[in-house]
Amino acid sequence: MATLSKVPRTEVLKDVQETLGLVPEWVRSIPESVLPGLWAEMRDFYLAETKIPNKYKELIGLGVAGATRCKYCALFHTEAARLFGATDEEIAEASALAGFSMQVSTYVNAKQIDFDKFKKETLEIVEHVKRQMAAAPGKARAEQPRHA
Amino acid sequence: MATLSKVPRTEVLKDVQETLGLVPEWVRSIPESVLPGLWAEMRDFYLAETKIPNKYKELIGLGVAGATRCKYCALFHTEAARLFGATDEEIAEASALAGFSMQVSTYVNAKQIDFDKFKKETLEIVEHVKRQMAAAPGKARAEQPRHA
Amino acid sequence: MATLSKVPRTEVLKDVQETLGLVPEWVRSIPESVLPGLWAEMRDFYLAETKIPNKYKELIGLGVAGATRCKYCALFHTEAARLFGATDEEIAEASALAGFSMQVSTYVNAKQIDFDKFKKETLEIVEHVKRQMAAAPGKARAEQPRHA
Amino acid sequence: MATLSKVPRTEVLKDVQETLGLVPEWVRSIPESVLPGLWAEMRDFYLAETKIPNKYKELIGLGVAGATRCKYCALFHTEAARLFGATDEEIAEASALAGFSMQVSTYVNAKQIDFDKFKKETLEIVEHVKRQMAAAPGKARAEQPRHA
Amino acid sequence: MATLSKVPRTEVLKDVQETLGLVPEWVRSIPESVLPGLWAEMRDFYLAETKIPNKYKELIGLGVAGATRCKYCALFHTEAARLFGATDEEIAEASALAGFSMQVSTYVNAKQIDFDKFKKETLEIVEHVKRQMAAAPGKARAEQPRHA
Amino acid sequence: MATLSKVPRTEVLKDVQETLGLVPEWVRSIPESVLPGLWAEMRDFYLAETKIPNKYKELIGLGVAGATRCKYCALFHTEAARLFGATDEEIAEASALAGFSMQVSTYVNAKQIDFDKFKKETLEIVEHVKRQMAAAPGKARAEQPRHA
Repeated sequence: MATLSKVPRTEVLKDVQETLGLVPEWVRSIPESVLPGLWAEMRDFYLAETKIPNKYKELIGLGVAGATRCKYCALFHTEAARLFGATDEEIAEASALAGFSMQVSTYVNAKQIDFDKFKKETLEIVEHVKRQMAAAPGKARAEQPRHA
Repeated sequence: MATLSKVPRTEVLKDVQETLGLVPEWVRSIPESVLPGLWAEMRDFYLAETKIPNKYKELIGLGVAGATRCKYCALFHTEAARLFGATDEEIAEASALAGFSMQVSTYVNAKQIDFDKFKKETLEIVEHVKRQMAAAPGKARAEQPRHA
Repeated sequence: MATLSKVPRTEVLKDVQETLGLVPEWVRSIPESVLPGLWAEMRDFYLAETKIPNKYKELIGLGVAGATRCKYCALFHTEAARLFGATDEEIAEASALAGFSMQVSTYVNAKQIDFDKFKKETLEIVEHVKRQMAAAPGKARAEQPRHA
Repeated sequence: MATLSKVPRTEVLKDVQETLGLVPEWVRSIPESVLPGLWAEMRDFYLAETKIPNKYKELIGLGVAGATRCKYCALFHTEAARLFGATDEEIAEASALAGFSMQVSTYVNAKQIDFDKFKKETLEIVEHVKRQMAAAPGKARAEQPRHA
Repeated sequence: MATLSKVPRTEVLKDVQETLGLVPEWVRSIPESVLPGLWAEMRDFYLAETKIPNKYKELIGLGVAGATRCKYCALFHTEAARLFGATDEEIAEASALAGFSMQVSTYVNAKQIDFDKFKKETLEIVEHVKRQMAAAPGKARAEQPRHA
Repeated sequence: MATLSKVPRTEVLKDVQETLGLVPEWVRSIPESVLPGLWAEMRDFYLAETKIPNKYKELIGLGVAGATRCKYCALFHTEAARLFGATDEEIAEASALAGFSMQVSTYVNAKQIDFDKFKKETLEIVEHVKRQMAAAPGKARAEQPRHA
């Protein structure tokens, strides 16, 4: 894997310039030994076509941004989500989903819910819903959005 | 909205039982004044068909779980994501996306990147990519997954 | 529980308007399937009279806001705490309590303190203090504030 | 303030032993230069009678523990809250309050709600409720718990 | 340890004034029962010469600030790190290190990596690197910085 | 930068095997498009000799782990810090430093300390200490540890 560490900074910055149209200040400030790897992840995973469509990658990032209070990320992921086709409603839903998840998680952690029982009950719930979905496939909660 | 607050606990628990197949301990422990509203959100938003497909709602929750270290949620969202069709690869990608986002966000917050400049550059990047996508629509990063 | 999900958005917003005197932008932006449940929790639990007096509910919220760095919440909970009678000293104490708790928790998590031993010792401490309080009830750390 | 820094470790540990009945492992592991100050805070603020009653201090700590996922703190604050008279219902309410606050805060941070507008609306809401409480003092949300 | 709790506020504030050249607003706002202990920790541990050099203490604080999004701390620790000799490159590296750590930690928590296996493998890795360092001490990753 | 994205997974895993002595499960589970970049960062920055000595990189990671409650990271960074020469005292100090920083940060965020005033006062403090260090260089808080 020797080639990977040999990528010169100027080459990385040139690649950033071509891909993003500019080299943002935050990218320029990244230490030399960090940049090639970070940019490889950004270009080949985050911005690339992978198993999760880019719109949903951005909505995952948006949920994380809300839960961990990063204003940079909330801005970036919102704009990028819109770029990849997200509507205002989807942005609001992703924000609300992260909020709902944080509500329940904060509660169960504070209440010291027994983890083994939680796991057992969760797996039983999954089996129950699976049976329901098999019995009434037409009414199943589809993977596809309702309003696509 | 008077009816909303009148929903008796027994009626809510009956609805939980029917929907999930059991009443998990953590639901049973929720205070009386909290439960009707929390369950309404869970049933009518989180578990319902809304703009964001359930599979992606779970992957958002999974990203949040990793970033905020909730073992209950990591388990729940992983199992529910699988129920709604997520593959191991999608689960790994959602985890990695949250990780990548936390990496950059931790860096830019520590480095005190100027927010106004960050915003300006982000909007310029979005315009640049938009132009590229318009110029080469066939090569655009599609909303649909590559391997669907 | 059918009624709960049937509450129309206009009815919820009317209830918000009556209770708060206006419909804040953040409430208005909440997705339709989320709003009835979230508002039910806000009205019937958070803003209602429940077991924990409202002043202390706000101080709990303030502690959480400080620990998780939410500027919206720090503002909201501070103003609401004052509305319910909190003094500047109580607001400073709640902030300091959250700070003290985060100090110790960060330390014990980083130091990988053995959890089972921590639990055993904590229960022994509780028993010790209980015995002391029983032996000298006049000197017990009372539930009531000293300067009420 | 010279005296404070001169407190020998053995004297601090003796004080811990007398107050808690034992010296927990986590206290024993604290660096020499940290312990006198940390213990002073613990004894003179956290465990002492101050403006906020100890029961509510523990419930603040419990809310913070849930929001920041500290299992040590969830255990400690729950046991200490009970020691100071908290009921199961109050413990569940504190957990739910932290959960509700994290839900809304995650949402407003992800949705990038305008802070100045949020502040203006919050202050208006506070004024509205204040007027309502003045007009109907008997129905005001009292500082005292309903079921005291 | 009686002396410790007897330190009057005026004496503490005088000590703060002498050490820092002023009494910052945030110090002045700290509750009376909290201040002596907090200042003792700040003066005798945080600002004092201890096992970890002050420059690196500040870089630890900076990493924590980035990971937990505290703008006050990012500013304070950056300025203090520079005061104790940190270069721009070291500040960028500390920010990136915190970022890298948050990336991996978010991933492994979301992916529910088995902890016992993680521990076993980590200990094996440490043994492997230890053997390598012993075999080639000249090439070992030294404790001293390369560019000191 | 074409070469970087072309690094095949097998080559990366071989490099991991050589460097760490094994391929940990968590590395093996990382998505194909993420691994080359993440490993490049790990090898060329995190594990490499850079401006911040490895021992201190690990202590930064340990502080972050405590503040963000990652048990995997607390274990990993503790073991790696020891590998690079950290003593038990340094590990306890890093944990306590992160704890102290989280205490103050939680407090100032909850108390809504005015940021501009905080910044102005911080810069004045830095100037004050700088003058003191220049006036009494022998007594200055040195960059080198006392007990090296």
